[in-house]
Amino acid sequence: MNGAQSVVRTLVNSGVEVCFANPGTSEMHFVAALDSVSGMRPVLCLFEGVVTGAADGYGRIAAKPAVNLLHLGPGLANGLANLHNARRAGTPIVNIVGDHAAYHLQYDAPLTSDIAGFARPVSSWIHESKSAGAVASDTARAVQAACAAPGGIATLIMPADVAWNQAARAAHKLPEIGPAQVAAETVEAIAKRLSNGKKSALLLRGQALLGDALEAAGRVAAKTGVRLLCDTFAPQTELGAGRVPLERIPYFSEQITAFLKDVEQLILVGSKPPVSFFAYPGKPSWGAPEGCLIEYLAQPHENGAQAVKDLAAAVDAPAEPAARTQLVLPELPKGKLNSLGVAQAIAHLTPDHAIYAEEANTSGLPFQMMLPKARPHTHLPLTGGSIGQGLPLAIGAAIAAPDRKVVCPHGDGGAAYTMQALWTMAREKLDVTVVIYANRSYAILNIELQRVGASGAGANALSMLDLHNPEMNWMKIAEGLGVEASRATTAEEFSAQYASAMSQRGPRLIEALI
Amino acid sequence: MNGAQSVVRTLVNSGVEVCFANPGTSEMHFVAALDSVSGMRPVLCLFEGVVTGAADGYGRIAAKPAVNLLHLGPGLANGLANLHNARRAGTPIVNIVGDHAAYHLQYDAPLTSDIAGFARPVSSWIHESKSAGAVASDTARAVQAACAAPGGIATLIMPADVAWNQAARAAHKLPEIGPAQVAAETVEAIAKRLSNGKKSALLLRGQALLGDALEAAGRVAAKTGVRLLCDTFAPQTELGAGRVPLERIPYFSEQITAFLKDVEQLILVGSKPPVSFFAYPGKPSWGAPEGCLIEYLAQPHENGAQAVKDLAAAVDAPAEPAARTQLVLPELPKGKLNSLGVAQAIAHLTPDHAIYAEEANTSGLPFQMMLPKARPHTHLPLTGGSIGQGLPLAIGAAIAAPDRKVVCPHGDGGAAYTMQALWTMAREKLDVTVVIYANRSYAILNIELQRVGASGAGANALSMLDLHNPEMNWMKIAEGLGVEASRATTAEEFSAQYASAMSQRGPRLIEALI
Repeated sequence: MNGAQSVVRTLVNSGVEVCFANPGTSEMHFVAALDSVSGMRPVLCLFEGVVTGAADGYGRIAAKPAVNLLHLGPGLANGLANLHNARRAGTPIVNIVGDHAAYHLQYDAPLTSDIAGFARPVSSWIHESKSAGAVASDTARAVQAACAAPGGIATLIMPADVAWNQAARAAHKLPEIGPAQVAAETVEAIAKRLSNGKKSALLLRGQALLGDALEAAGRVAAKTGVRLLCDTFAPQTELGAGRVPLERIPYFSEQITAFLKDVEQLILVGSKPPVSFFAYPGKPSWGAPEGCLIEYLAQPHENGAQAVKDLAAAVDAPAEPAARTQLVLPELPKGKLNSLGVAQAIAHLTPDHAIYAEEANTSGLPFQMMLPKARPHTHLPLTGGSIGQGLPLAIGAAIAAPDRKVVCPHGDGGAAYTMQALWTMAREKLDVTVVIYANRSYAILNIELQRVGASGAGANALSMLDLHNPEMNWMKIAEGLGVEASRATTAEEFSAQYASAMSQRGPRLIEALI
Repeated sequence: MNGAQSVVRTLVNSGVEVCFANPGTSEMHFVAALDSVSGMRPVLCLFEGVVTGAADGYGRIAAKPAVNLLHLGPGLANGLANLHNARRAGTPIVNIVGDHAAYHLQYDAPLTSDIAGFARPVSSWIHESKSAGAVASDTARAVQAACAAPGGIATLIMPADVAWNQAARAAHKLPEIGPAQVAAETVEAIAKRLSNGKKSALLLRGQALLGDALEAAGRVAAKTGVRLLCDTFAPQTELGAGRVPLERIPYFSEQITAFLKDVEQLILVGSKPPVSFFAYPGKPSWGAPEGCLIEYLAQPHENGAQAVKDLAAAVDAPAEPAARTQLVLPELPKGKLNSLGVAQAIAHLTPDHAIYAEEANTSGLPFQMMLPKARPHTHLPLTGGSIGQGLPLAIGAAIAAPDRKVVCPHGDGGAAYTMQALWTMAREKLDVTVVIYANRSYAILNIELQRVGASGAGANALSMLDLHNPEMNWMKIAEGLGVEASRATTAEEFSAQYASAMSQRGPRLIEALI
């Protein structure tokens, strides 16, 4: 057994069973070990931004890490933007980066770089493995670190000679580092606050937004009248008919201020105080009103889900939540196609329990209005603001949940970042329907240009926000990457194409000309 | 004048006249300044890996920096792989990265990250600008730092409030930090060495490979019999008929050893000792034979070009070089298309003074045999081993030299990394002919898998090297991104399509099914 085999075996022992990869020479022993060790599914991606975004989607849905296999510093570098998003999502990921054999580093060959330096800004744990004998236990520690609450990116740097040298044995799974429990007196104190008659809100994130914990939050609301909020880009929400309704914090700073203006007590459960996404001249960064009390029921590394359930008990909440979402399906759209019509058709036609890997940005506003009242579903947004995550995220979600429909509504500007993801969807025959909002613009930037007060913009500036010259043809791009595709120019065409996609399995792309 | 305007004006004052960009909200004032300040050409790219690779191509050909405009840490991260290649090329680049307003950083908003941390592994100079009043002089220093020999990446982090606050004035260009001069006694000592009867070689890099310096090296060879070598991936070479011929160091370690086995004295001019690109079990990393004396005529930061000319004088070299390349054009290929036929057609049909932005990898071997004897041209290879540079490099070269034909022979695996570059070629109507070697494989890895001795590879492993499932259709991808494209399945078809591309201006892509 060589080092690479001991790594793959240890990953499988630790419950890691999917490897998103774009390997090179220094990873060839790991690649070979994918055959000599069973239990690991390798998924090839044409670009590392796809690798890391797919691992994020997988980790959010599977609630356990996939492993990335990346080729030295530049391979890692190509994956950093989506690792940034994954870090913001708190997704567990094991990130293995091959390096030159240790004795080769002194020669500063062309691919040599500061791998740990690249990894540091996104990793919660970094280790450079030094021997084939120890790399198995390093791997077990990496899995443990990735899964430590709230979930993080554990980067293991594996020199080629560590991979090819003789190893003793694989390691077993290490005990999980579970989230810290919230003290009973903290729960009691918050319970008392919620009974003091002040206007309160719970801002929930992570596991506290899912399943029983969300039900418990709804029951707390039934008893205390507390508002239930989630972040603009909460990594994962369970929405739709029958679920406890949530209020999503809006995007722009003045909207946040208006949204929170009546809140006197803001209770954080795994979340941070709400702030503006960007700074704007003369506008506040801080979202909560002056004098608003902010307290933590649970920090991100604590067991927020259990704390909400304990809170429900502490306030003596009833058995049923204050409200459940009633199903409201919009009519199918007619006539000219626009982002409203796209949202109507998607909300109308998508079956139960779909997963939305969503990066629709400006075009997604109608979508975000309608979706919470549509059929029950899981929503995965862009968490870290680094565009080009939606398509990779859909790959990972589809692999984690092969029986659920994955829908990927995506702005054209962001989709252009990681269009290579379409190829992996075709290769793995994933049940993903991609909807491209083809407005041929970085539309958000037309808004932002005004909002930041940048005056004097003329032809040069506006050309930097415009994608009309030339117009991308997403049908051809998708077909070129092996995905069946169509274009919709009217609402009726879009509905027919989307209905067709919903009625079959496998990857489809619809370019919505809006 | 705001900070952003003072930056753009300072860049123009300092001779920087092209901006490759993919901006976001925090860069909107810089974008607006592209209209209020004249003299800067903005070039929008759909992905930051295209931005940075284009700046590398521009800098190599223009011998001065372009400026990149990147959006916070993730925007920089997406550009790091091609900045790695540019660092290895010693290309001057000014890299401006927008950041949140300084007062906004404390809130850790989603796009916040350690920008300097991302930048450090690739940058020769980093500065975080702190005030609108000082950012103009920071910018002037960035240009100066980028141009310091041998050329490097100067990263200036510009917070949004530095961009939008009031600035006093722009800065003037700072004095250039020229290369250090090589001492006369060093030149004398090397001249003496070259007359001692031992078998010697000059390994040239950078400016020492170009123009008068290359001529001088040829004259030194005429007098002393010294071999003239260049690195496998010398950032820029001037080759072809009429030029002084160079021997290129081969790629694999055992080839390097054989190539250098008779060399007793290796003289480095702006280069480093030759080493293997990767380490392999049981094979040497070091290229020079045991006992070979290695001396520096010039370090990379020194004036190697002048040193070679001084050396020619010191050895009393004749007026003419030892040899000049004679034009040898292969016949046009016939029948089945393969990488040999592609090389024959390119060598036969490409006009004088073309620039090759080349990332053909395994498919490029016949090309590298024929091209040095073809018409005079400039060759720009992948310098740092991070694939996905060729297409962006071609953009930058075409913008730096609008009157020269740019040819981009590219492997399909690498081209998939930065296919978005095609869109910018169409948008800017660049005179670039892209040739995709469609072998549907990471072909080099099939070789490397054997060479590293990774045994036991089966279906899983081999699937990681294979791009047949699905087959990319590069004609559709190119058309989807706005570039006229065709497919060639026979040698005759390829020659006809390539001849057509050579006879017109503007972007073209030919998918060579080999």
